[in-house]
Amino acid sequence: MEPPYIMKIKVGIIGGTGYTGVELLRILATHPGVSVEVITSRGEAGTPVSEIFPSLRGHFDIRFVAPDEAQLENCDVVFSAAPNGVAMSHARRLVEAGTRLIDVAADFRLEDPKVWEQWYGMPHECPDLLEEAVYGLPELNRDSIREARIVANPGCYPTTITLALLPLLAGGLVGTDDLIADAKSGVSGAGRKASVGTLLAEASESMKAYGVEGHRHQPEIHQTLSRVTGERVALTFVPHLAPMIRGIHATVYATLKSDDDDLQETFERYYAAEPFVDVMPGGSHPETRSVRGSNTCRVAVHRPGGGSRVVVLSVTDNLVKGAAGQAVQNMNIMMGLDETQGLGAPALLP
Amino acid sequence: MEPPYIMKIKVGIIGGTGYTGVELLRILATHPGVSVEVITSRGEAGTPVSEIFPSLRGHFDIRFVAPDEAQLENCDVVFSAAPNGVAMSHARRLVEAGTRLIDVAADFRLEDPKVWEQWYGMPHECPDLLEEAVYGLPELNRDSIREARIVANPGCYPTTITLALLPLLAGGLVGTDDLIADAKSGVSGAGRKASVGTLLAEASESMKAYGVEGHRHQPEIHQTLSRVTGERVALTFVPHLAPMIRGIHATVYATLKSDDDDLQETFERYYAAEPFVDVMPGGSHPETRSVRGSNTCRVAVHRPGGGSRVVVLSVTDNLVKGAAGQAVQNMNIMMGLDETQGLGAPALLP
Amino acid sequence: MEPPYIMKIKVGIIGGTGYTGVELLRILATHPGVSVEVITSRGEAGTPVSEIFPSLRGHFDIRFVAPDEAQLENCDVVFSAAPNGVAMSHARRLVEAGTRLIDVAADFRLEDPKVWEQWYGMPHECPDLLEEAVYGLPELNRDSIREARIVANPGCYPTTITLALLPLLAGGLVGTDDLIADAKSGVSGAGRKASVGTLLAEASESMKAYGVEGHRHQPEIHQTLSRVTGERVALTFVPHLAPMIRGIHATVYATLKSDDDDLQETFERYYAAEPFVDVMPGGSHPETRSVRGSNTCRVAVHRPGGGSRVVVLSVTDNLVKGAAGQAVQNMNIMMGLDETQGLGAPALLP
Amino acid sequence: MEPPYIMKIKVGIIGGTGYTGVELLRILATHPGVSVEVITSRGEAGTPVSEIFPSLRGHFDIRFVAPDEAQLENCDVVFSAAPNGVAMSHARRLVEAGTRLIDVAADFRLEDPKVWEQWYGMPHECPDLLEEAVYGLPELNRDSIREARIVANPGCYPTTITLALLPLLAGGLVGTDDLIADAKSGVSGAGRKASVGTLLAEASESMKAYGVEGHRHQPEIHQTLSRVTGERVALTFVPHLAPMIRGIHATVYATLKSDDDDLQETFERYYAAEPFVDVMPGGSHPETRSVRGSNTCRVAVHRPGGGSRVVVLSVTDNLVKGAAGQAVQNMNIMMGLDETQGLGAPALLP
Repeated sequence: MEPPYIMKIKVGIIGGTGYTGVELLRILATHPGVSVEVITSRGEAGTPVSEIFPSLRGHFDIRFVAPDEAQLENCDVVFSAAPNGVAMSHARRLVEAGTRLIDVAADFRLEDPKVWEQWYGMPHECPDLLEEAVYGLPELNRDSIREARIVANPGCYPTTITLALLPLLAGGLVGTDDLIADAKSGVSGAGRKASVGTLLAEASESMKAYGVEGHRHQPEIHQTLSRVTGERVALTFVPHLAPMIRGIHATVYATLKSDDDDLQETFERYYAAEPFVDVMPGGSHPETRSVRGSNTCRVAVHRPGGGSRVVVLSVTDNLVKGAAGQAVQNMNIMMGLDETQGLGAPALLP
Repeated sequence: MEPPYIMKIKVGIIGGTGYTGVELLRILATHPGVSVEVITSRGEAGTPVSEIFPSLRGHFDIRFVAPDEAQLENCDVVFSAAPNGVAMSHARRLVEAGTRLIDVAADFRLEDPKVWEQWYGMPHECPDLLEEAVYGLPELNRDSIREARIVANPGCYPTTITLALLPLLAGGLVGTDDLIADAKSGVSGAGRKASVGTLLAEASESMKAYGVEGHRHQPEIHQTLSRVTGERVALTFVPHLAPMIRGIHATVYATLKSDDDDLQETFERYYAAEPFVDVMPGGSHPETRSVRGSNTCRVAVHRPGGGSRVVVLSVTDNLVKGAAGQAVQNMNIMMGLDETQGLGAPALLP
Repeated sequence: MEPPYIMKIKVGIIGGTGYTGVELLRILATHPGVSVEVITSRGEAGTPVSEIFPSLRGHFDIRFVAPDEAQLENCDVVFSAAPNGVAMSHARRLVEAGTRLIDVAADFRLEDPKVWEQWYGMPHECPDLLEEAVYGLPELNRDSIREARIVANPGCYPTTITLALLPLLAGGLVGTDDLIADAKSGVSGAGRKASVGTLLAEASESMKAYGVEGHRHQPEIHQTLSRVTGERVALTFVPHLAPMIRGIHATVYATLKSDDDDLQETFERYYAAEPFVDVMPGGSHPETRSVRGSNTCRVAVHRPGGGSRVVVLSVTDNLVKGAAGQAVQNMNIMMGLDETQGLGAPALLP
Repeated sequence: MEPPYIMKIKVGIIGGTGYTGVELLRILATHPGVSVEVITSRGEAGTPVSEIFPSLRGHFDIRFVAPDEAQLENCDVVFSAAPNGVAMSHARRLVEAGTRLIDVAADFRLEDPKVWEQWYGMPHECPDLLEEAVYGLPELNRDSIREARIVANPGCYPTTITLALLPLLAGGLVGTDDLIADAKSGVSGAGRKASVGTLLAEASESMKAYGVEGHRHQPEIHQTLSRVTGERVALTFVPHLAPMIRGIHATVYATLKSDDDDLQETFERYYAAEPFVDVMPGGSHPETRSVRGSNTCRVAVHRPGGGSRVVVLSVTDNLVKGAAGQAVQNMNIMMGLDETQGLGAPALLP
């Protein structure tokens, strides 16, 4: 479709059999500027990608291969969609070979290797690279992402919650010691692995909270918000499992410091130039389905009864803006492409 | 099945074609002490109940009839499952005839007729009866319910949220000015009426908040909590629509006044004698499906990170403990029956 | 509740952590005539039943125990809810001890041990007991069930499909060489075990056929229908996975031999005395939700356009009439109880 | 994106507030060759499209307008996504103005106006135009579609079932007097209109057949199949409502005339050149989710046990290949564009 003189960016994917992997492929299938050269899977090496994911029949002819450094190093950019701990084992060789790495898992999200070890239960393999890695939230770090060798793609909850709070915290409009994020996620966030708890017969027709005592995304959220405010924030984060495949709805509560601010205007101004944050009109209640399959985060800000409490509603597709879509957005920034390339389709509704 | 000398309680149901109506019938079908004598519906008068609800084939042979005071007055107890505004139009004649009235809608929930008018958009027809009506939360008002001529069956959200907060507020353990109730409800709460917003194709695979600026259940919750504490409480209430049929999950946030309390013990002691409140073990995350079809409210209390924030998780079936089941519990209390009669079946899981 | 002089039937359950196990407990919780004495699980020995299934908190205080012949032999009746192959390893000792066995799995369903071995991939341990086992479809074998030492509880598909065809085949009204059963099942039929294919994120919002080349329930259906007709029947059976937890909808196609029969009357007469088969009025389309949680099979017979094709719609709850409920029905028959005891509650709708 | 000298095709949409309307917009949003000039709605005239469908925020700035012939005539092509009976009221003026019409409803599907009247309950307004209208199944009528002034976009069931049968019937491989199509559809097929039967609380967690006595899509299927075979076919069609938003799964049964045919090869050869029919490998069971949001029909052919019965499994997205996507495919053909333009994105999975 594009003229032949345009060189396609060579892309590799590590660990392509999970939901982030298939979502990267779904998005990249219509991206005009890239070519997926290699996709790895220990368990499915040799199997055609379209056999595991019939939805991709006719879109990709490649097969999964065993992880192979040489093939990966030959790529311009590599997405790691493998479990935590895998990306950091590839990182040094890749960046030394000039390949840029976007880790869609958590290896490079927490800047302090001790905090990482505490929450992820293993020592960090390359603290020096951790130091240079950039937290890949474009709305916060676009310029650093452009130059980064390693981008830590944010978690799905942190993306959704941080985007809800940024305008308030950056403007110093709310207190930082009583924040609450009550978040509801579809079950695809738990990944594509056999488990009793996320069977349809267990997770459908039901809601529950989980991890109330502590969740790995909490230190990640704290880290980002503290960077923004320059002070320690206290945020109570309660994730819930909702009976749906995709989508996160974060309901964020904060206390206003002053009565004077026009919150709607604050949000609209803050995100005016952002292609993937949509500030809804006053009084709106965004639905997760309005972003199903799309890279948009929709937010709506409320001040019930005109009191001092502000409530921000924020929705994303956990697999897109919360994972693969944001990773492609980061790749576009890193590679000098139009930031929205491959990410222009509307949500699938209904 | 029961000996012939036991007189069955004669029951009437006003407005039986909605979800509260069919749920009352489902529960009463196995209740050994009652006989459903009359069930009214303007729109379906003459139609057999089992034609509208095939699930009741073989359980009830009766037909819907047009509202008929005489037949209703002949009952010992009448449930009003009709929309708001209907129960109050029947109330005076019924209580004067000695029939006791349980309104599963909202006509008698708010003690101040002006507040009622403000939220429900019509003047109250019988403020004097409103004054004597008892708020039918057995865990709070069991003794008054026993004697009441009119019981106002609580709303589904108020039941779920109030039971989460009672032990904390009754004990004075938390502040009353920063309470938050983030609640998620299945769509049956919206009733059995044609509407685009609750179509499967609209409400499935999605989450959204609604009514953030104000919801009718908010003044009801405030009223109950203020009675308990003796002071005005401030509670931010945000309801959400979850893609499931039944169930409410309330996640309630409060701030502890002191560091000394054993919250688990507080909850267990407070509800020790309650047949329908189940305090889960420490660290639990109750699922709504664990109460699907049952009259139980399960609560779990958390103190994330040992800080000053307390998080209470509370689940009910909105159609049972949140409506028809609690109504039958109230009937049992009013009629001197075992409070649990007809309400003994476990939840339907999976 | 019942007078003290009534001896409760002592019940044991082998393999109680699956969906059949929890469903047996749900039903037996309200059965007035039984006491669950022992429930086994290798993996969960020592764990309270209500910890695995919080829906049963307050209903059962027992714990899972390791399989223990002595405890099982002490029971009047034992349900085996364990995987295929387990019941036959317990059968001899149990029946020799006078304990009656209801296998809710498949060990005793196929009368020919060679056919069994072919479909279930293991040799049968006790062909002699297989010979005496009774196929537990009360509508067909009530008298033999009454006396049986071993009852083979039918599969969920065979129950639903056989009940659709019985009146037609018993009356010789349709051909036997071109039967088709197109069946749609909820995912709980796949059991409560970790698997990718039945994750909510995989099985929700989708339909698919499976096992078109052959399914274990096919020889079982053939065997029953051939017994009824006295000749070999040819039936094409295509099962489908539907995105719901419970329920089977079988759509059965057959060709009428004659134009003269009143099919509606044929069905109503055939099932007139059956407590758990509900012949719907002419023109009906039964919904699986109308039997959710109940032991009823609802059938409706159609003759589209008045032609020679008959279409029977048949719905059951696969975990109740298709498994645990029918097992309790069989127990009631075997123990001389009222056949409907413990099975009287209406379906959970909505 | 495209060079400025490419003239965009001017598109109008009649009746844009239903699911076909929003789906047309979703697809056309990424179609490089068209510009949506006008979209009509009586009820929502004046409302921005993105207010009704927030998923389209940022994609379309237009508002719904009242039906206006002049504006529509100014378009190159008009899609009618309005209810049955609307397209035929606009048809004459549009085609006389040189605007080509694609009716996504049923006005031009049945060639005999009497049959149309019988099934749709109103006289046909323009039988002469009916005569020239082309049935828009590209796999059958591509050449006629290219020249057509009016294209009747096929129904969702007919598309899915016809594509399953075409290779068998065109080759004369199966009998034509005992065909059966057992089809399962998501509820979006019922449209975006308030109705009790398709509420989430009614249609979720349940399966049911409907219209067994006759469905409007039956004469449409008959007509197409009879044209293909040159003889009258007899097909029993039973549609079912499945608890999901999108997707049709048709399970089609036929009887082979001969034992000699390689069915897999027959299907692969027949559809070798078709961009939107995917013949799955032997033994496959296509899932509806594998085509969610995509214009592909996936089919798999089975011959259970090697007998004379052939079973074809066929899946589509009812809103895409079954409605809006096929309409865009037809537009591409009519306008001389690449047939796949705007239709290249993979399905949304999971």
